[in-house]
Amino acid sequence: MKFVLLFVTKNEHKVLEVRQIIKMLNAESIVEVRPYNLPKIEIQSNDLAEIALHAARYAYDKSHLKEYPVVVEDAGLFIEALNGFPGPYSSYVYKTIGIRGVLKLMEGVENRCAYFLSAVAIVHSELGERVFVGRVDGSIAHEARGTKGFGFDPIFIPEGCDKTFAEMNINEKCLYSHRSKAFRKLIEWLVSKA
Amino acid sequence: MKFVLLFVTKNEHKVLEVRQIIKMLNAESIVEVRPYNLPKIEIQSNDLAEIALHAARYAYDKSHLKEYPVVVEDAGLFIEALNGFPGPYSSYVYKTIGIRGVLKLMEGVENRCAYFLSAVAIVHSELGERVFVGRVDGSIAHEARGTKGFGFDPIFIPEGCDKTFAEMNINEKCLYSHRSKAFRKLIEWLVSKA
Repeated sequence: MKFVLLFVTKNEHKVLEVRQIIKMLNAESIVEVRPYNLPKIEIQSNDLAEIALHAARYAYDKSHLKEYPVVVEDAGLFIEALNGFPGPYSSYVYKTIGIRGVLKLMEGVENRCAYFLSAVAIVHSELGERVFVGRVDGSIAHEARGTKGFGFDPIFIPEGCDKTFAEMNINEKCLYSHRSKAFRKLIEWLVSKA
Repeated sequence: MKFVLLFVTKNEHKVLEVRQIIKMLNAESIVEVRPYNLPKIEIQSNDLAEIALHAARYAYDKSHLKEYPVVVEDAGLFIEALNGFPGPYSSYVYKTIGIRGVLKLMEGVENRCAYFLSAVAIVHSELGERVFVGRVDGSIAHEARGTKGFGFDPIFIPEGCDKTFAEMNINEKCLYSHRSKAFRKLIEWLVSKA
């Protein structure tokens, strides 16, 4: 049995990363991901799992391909010294004040601890509803480094590593990333159902 | 005819401000506002009107008092030099990086232009759905001043004024405020229907 997942996203990086994870888990014969343009609604909440689940329910409800599960991922960067900012609104913050703004907020701040969180929700009439969460701890760099990845990748250094996410190729990033951990759980769960 | 509005908010300042506006318009015999605890859902969007309308629809749907219109207000501070940040997420930004964070982002920034926007949505089976928007232009102060009001009031100086919102009493603030302008439109519309 093969699961074809409709992945509601316009972010090509995310699609590439998820395909890489599937490949790393040797699950290509069981799970396939297709980017899919469904209406996306995101609620305002501090809980990424709630945001992702709500969005996946809404998208599945609007989907005309009910035989395929719908998957939504929501991710955020949580900086300890900034009380979790930018958190669930990372994408908006990236588009407005950007990396420069976050680095300015962190000027003179000693505590650089931060984590990336990813919540992956799946909704399907037969499989039901599930949310899988992945987290990677790390620190905020003092300056942006690297050009790969997207969003705040150039200023996030995962624990036990010298490079930022933006200095890693996709394979390397997937060894560490929050997204990778969350999708790994989803894929393992699907494999167990196959 | 008197309209009793169920105002979905936990912010007492907002309730006081709206009552003051009703008073200033001599509309107390026509419009009454009651703070009401209904499920509130806010979507992520750059459009305050959309956020307020969506929330008002949702709350009215959950209301057991369908004879009363439901009112939701959403407001935000939009800073030009920060590409509109914090905008629709002003309340989250206030709770995390706060006034200090916004002032830090504005350090060395010459362009201090900003505006407050308020969107007031009303939903009712007979009155239908409407959204009223109010805006006040002004600038970001170089330091926080005043203790009245709430949120970013201590750093916002409306055009044609020396004081921040937090240095004004409620009457004064209502002469200038975005909220006042939006609710004035709502109240005038209700008065025309009475």
